[in-house]
Amino acid sequence: MAVYTEVSGEDIAAFLAQYDVGALVSLKGIAEGVENSNYLLLTDRSPYIVTLYEKRVAAEDLPYFLGLMEHLAGRGVPCPTPIHGRDGKALRELCGRPAVIVSFLEGVWPRRIQPEHCAALGEALARLHIAGADFGMSRPNALSFAGWRQLYAACKARADTVQGGLCAILEAELDHLEGAWPSDLPAGIIHADLFPDNVFFEGFRITGLIDFYFSCNDFFAYDVAVCLNAWCFERYGEFNITKASQMLSSYRGVREFSAAELEALPRLARGAALRFLLTRLYDLLHQVEGALGKPKDPLEHLRKLRFHQGVSGPAAYGLT
Amino acid sequence: MAVYTEVSGEDIAAFLAQYDVGALVSLKGIAEGVENSNYLLLTDRSPYIVTLYEKRVAAEDLPYFLGLMEHLAGRGVPCPTPIHGRDGKALRELCGRPAVIVSFLEGVWPRRIQPEHCAALGEALARLHIAGADFGMSRPNALSFAGWRQLYAACKARADTVQGGLCAILEAELDHLEGAWPSDLPAGIIHADLFPDNVFFEGFRITGLIDFYFSCNDFFAYDVAVCLNAWCFERYGEFNITKASQMLSSYRGVREFSAAELEALPRLARGAALRFLLTRLYDLLHQVEGALGKPKDPLEHLRKLRFHQGVSGPAAYGLT
Repeated sequence: MAVYTEVSGEDIAAFLAQYDVGALVSLKGIAEGVENSNYLLLTDRSPYIVTLYEKRVAAEDLPYFLGLMEHLAGRGVPCPTPIHGRDGKALRELCGRPAVIVSFLEGVWPRRIQPEHCAALGEALARLHIAGADFGMSRPNALSFAGWRQLYAACKARADTVQGGLCAILEAELDHLEGAWPSDLPAGIIHADLFPDNVFFEGFRITGLIDFYFSCNDFFAYDVAVCLNAWCFERYGEFNITKASQMLSSYRGVREFSAAELEALPRLARGAALRFLLTRLYDLLHQVEGALGKPKDPLEHLRKLRFHQGVSGPAAYGLT
Repeated sequence: MAVYTEVSGEDIAAFLAQYDVGALVSLKGIAEGVENSNYLLLTDRSPYIVTLYEKRVAAEDLPYFLGLMEHLAGRGVPCPTPIHGRDGKALRELCGRPAVIVSFLEGVWPRRIQPEHCAALGEALARLHIAGADFGMSRPNALSFAGWRQLYAACKARADTVQGGLCAILEAELDHLEGAWPSDLPAGIIHADLFPDNVFFEGFRITGLIDFYFSCNDFFAYDVAVCLNAWCFERYGEFNITKASQMLSSYRGVREFSAAELEALPRLARGAALRFLLTRLYDLLHQVEGALGKPKDPLEHLRKLRFHQGVSGPAAYGLT
């Protein structure tokens, strides 16, 4: 649920005057995106999304994110395209925040994941990885080891209040992964946060990929591991091998997995589980007065981590 | 911020199949309404609002609310019109909740209130009061004295933890108003919750009145008093007499105020302040685990109550 900044009629009217998108009909705060304020804008011409960047997104990263969306959209990835104003600029200010208008994407994100959704996702993810190849900018993954260590340090004192023994588990996992993390897998632009609420469907056809605000340069197979955790576990933590094998085989139908990527997948999946476990733990332990919504359960990703710790090879994911 | 129930693509597709509103393009949870889940639905024909009624709205009241909106819309009040399905029914079920599709209203609710907004509001409120005259159903005001006493009883033990001495103030006010409350003012259908976020504007022209889920039969002047509190105080609690006199005089331009209504206004305004003070206090003291958003400040209405306690007659509101 994200509307942190209230935009008045006067504000949006002055903002829209700088674009050629038609006249204001309606502006409604929507429950989409966690880091930013998002509005669904209807003009007499079309729907659009207006995003105001709140402080959790670094302003210096915005040219990368906006450039990437424009690049990907130009290569057929169904993602939001920043709309340029009459002055040629896409990024400007609204209510004291950096803000953009982006194109509206049809479809609905899936609340009940079916294997067919996972198959479509695998293909779309591979196409995204290929489409990013000739993007001219790069951004390191802020939520890799250095970031995990920082998050852990900020949670350490109170982690065991969330679950007894959690500190020891996190510390052991950080140590293990630091020694075992691959160093030379195929890498490029990844989305890094492609959870179901960031993927729109019409039936089982993908109509939109959104929320590129964690995208960065990292291993392609790490992005696959994030999706494995986000799409292939059931409500009570059971791994669904049908969904995983559908997702992975349709990914491989577009972009081949190397033997090294296959072999590294269990470790990458542990890392992906640890990443979301740590960020959710941090958010839970550092709730701000007046924050909107309730924090997500970090322990969901502890269960995923436990699963991957018990995996000996990619066959557990339905792969050979 | 209100999306309590997640609606899947399959759910909404099956729901839409019962209507003649076009094919699904998009469905987004919106930050509108506090009691219910609201989605902005785009079909290939038009935007609509889908509302799922959560447990705070009594199912037996829904025919009244829906009937009223339909009645008012038919008399030119710009309010949501329930859309009937192919079977003629407007009210059905979605994800286990009673649910409706209503017409979409253009405009934006005002974040910065100007006197011109208040003038437009006064006129619209009077038109609503007149338009409700021949509506065939009635509903008592659940949030009048009996309701206030119940709320107070449920808050009494902990009210003083919110502000020292609050219990004594509330008790004295309840006793005073019970003795002083008018009994024979002009009455009919009132909205009872016409705060700025329930009124859409295009410039200073009202394009929509929404959220009729507190509407009931009560004194017209009580509805005016609710609006006085909701629209005519500034950020730090200062009363704005320009806004009040604009609102009241434009109301009286459409529906004449009797001498008794004028004279009762300060008491009604105290009652209106007490009503929102008590419901907000209740919500603050009875926050549910997992609730969305943060509770509103009850003390805002204590300051309004204090103001009206010091008022000797309608001249304080810019009226003669």
